[in-house]
Amino acid sequence: MALLIHLTGVNEKAWAEGFRGALPGYPVFLRSDDYDPKAIHYVFAWKPEADAFEGMDNLKAILSLGAGVDALMQHPALPDVPIVRFVDKELTHCMSDYVIANVMMHQRLFTRYAAHQKAKVWNQFYPPASSEISVGIMGLGTLGLDAAEKLKVIGFDVCGWSRSKKEVEGVETFAGDGQLDAFLARTDILVCLLPLTPETHGILNMDTFKKLRRGPLVGGPALINAARGGHQKEADIAAALEDGTLAAASLDVFEVEPLPKDSPLWDLKTCFITPHIAAISNERSGVEYFSQMLKDHEAGQPLRNVVDRKRGY
Amino acid sequence: MALLIHLTGVNEKAWAEGFRGALPGYPVFLRSDDYDPKAIHYVFAWKPEADAFEGMDNLKAILSLGAGVDALMQHPALPDVPIVRFVDKELTHCMSDYVIANVMMHQRLFTRYAAHQKAKVWNQFYPPASSEISVGIMGLGTLGLDAAEKLKVIGFDVCGWSRSKKEVEGVETFAGDGQLDAFLARTDILVCLLPLTPETHGILNMDTFKKLRRGPLVGGPALINAARGGHQKEADIAAALEDGTLAAASLDVFEVEPLPKDSPLWDLKTCFITPHIAAISNERSGVEYFSQMLKDHEAGQPLRNVVDRKRGY
Repeated sequence: MALLIHLTGVNEKAWAEGFRGALPGYPVFLRSDDYDPKAIHYVFAWKPEADAFEGMDNLKAILSLGAGVDALMQHPALPDVPIVRFVDKELTHCMSDYVIANVMMHQRLFTRYAAHQKAKVWNQFYPPASSEISVGIMGLGTLGLDAAEKLKVIGFDVCGWSRSKKEVEGVETFAGDGQLDAFLARTDILVCLLPLTPETHGILNMDTFKKLRRGPLVGGPALINAARGGHQKEADIAAALEDGTLAAASLDVFEVEPLPKDSPLWDLKTCFITPHIAAISNERSGVEYFSQMLKDHEAGQPLRNVVDRKRGY
Repeated sequence: MALLIHLTGVNEKAWAEGFRGALPGYPVFLRSDDYDPKAIHYVFAWKPEADAFEGMDNLKAILSLGAGVDALMQHPALPDVPIVRFVDKELTHCMSDYVIANVMMHQRLFTRYAAHQKAKVWNQFYPPASSEISVGIMGLGTLGLDAAEKLKVIGFDVCGWSRSKKEVEGVETFAGDGQLDAFLARTDILVCLLPLTPETHGILNMDTFKKLRRGPLVGGPALINAARGGHQKEADIAAALEDGTLAAASLDVFEVEPLPKDSPLWDLKTCFITPHIAAISNERSGVEYFSQMLKDHEAGQPLRNVVDRKRGY
């Protein structure tokens, strides 16, 4: 029995030290260590190499550092073992911070006042109250539900859309392709927190933007994407911001990261770019979550938050 | 018996119509109407003229449109009758919107990412979680308490300071001059929602800013003032933003309004100016609140939210 840490582009040693501290007596290996692949019961993985799982005949589960497993699911030699997603309280907390900050920036008409300030114009235009604005959340998993709860407390009118119907108190919910248009038609600020699957790839496109409500949010609807770059068509976002279909956008993720220097998004005054920093998987909470999961599983308990390979998340 | 509407620079007719609808059979006069000053029991006032209350021998109370009565208290011939402040649910709601939006803009290091975007720099620096940031609210009246409750739900560490000690669950509270320094020393984002009195005049000055915590908020502390321009020394704010004592400021109010064109604040990239639009007294909720108060008072019930003239609010 052993745990292998296989994290590309992440500080593997720090994570290994964390796990060694949390799992006294349980072998924890780095890729550079000398270990027998047959001893590995668990791989803690982020962007694993093509040969990552070779010879692991006794692998029991893959533990994914990321909350999203879209990249992992593309692995060319993914073993047929359960994949456990990281459901991270601290990541959820930071993601809601990002979402609320950007929702409120758009609700309070930030770009309008910034333009007035630049021109030294004193124009007492009152922004709408949060209670007048509808925030439509795509994806009602852990992240979407936490953001929805907090936005409700602030006073927003919150609605949600997900693959399968969910009941959330105080939130009007929609499900599936058949209800997407109805969801968009009552949404002023669209927030994407979806998992990336073949069904959700490119869902943030001009056709979607044109169906958003043009109502109490002065200037037009706004878009926030903190999920994956694969959800968005950046050429459509740039065009929508330029022709007024969208009044503003906050993007934390991009089709290609880092965002190429020649992307038109950089120069748009109504586009707010952050470099995929909305929320990061937290080492402390990750060690706690996965070491408890590993101990429970080795003791015969079932795994939790296992990916449904057919759904893709 | 009668109600006189005396609002300077506000749509008096719209308010009068509202009150007439809510008080059938009760005389409601505009200043331009022909009325007997002795009949006036109540004046609904905003920036009343010097002779506003002349001949009103039977005045029972002044109803203040504004939540802040600092201007009214300076009136040269203020009658010795109770002054009722407007405690407005909708104004409170909008004020919390403004406060949360600006707190989170600073917590999420907005100015840092804006500068990086302008330079097309992809730098994956993670902002602190809301749970790491302390928001210090000056003024724990209706407005301060509502903002505190909502900021707590989002996850901020909230503390508060007021003239007299208040107990608020989950909020560390400080009171009076003696505890101001301790309050500032644990505050990353300072929010002013104080009433303007001789004691609070100019409280937002360089000495205050230098006492704020320099800790988890990368770059330094931030200031938000949505109360009155009289609370702030704008020369100190500009200097503090330039020398780094403050990392950023959001100002909705100014010593002179409209903010003069030659103010250095307009051009500071870390100063976010809005033209006194954080929240406005709402006509619908104002008519409801004051007409109920008037009916109750004429029926022998006590007034509510009466200004303490010694305190000044």
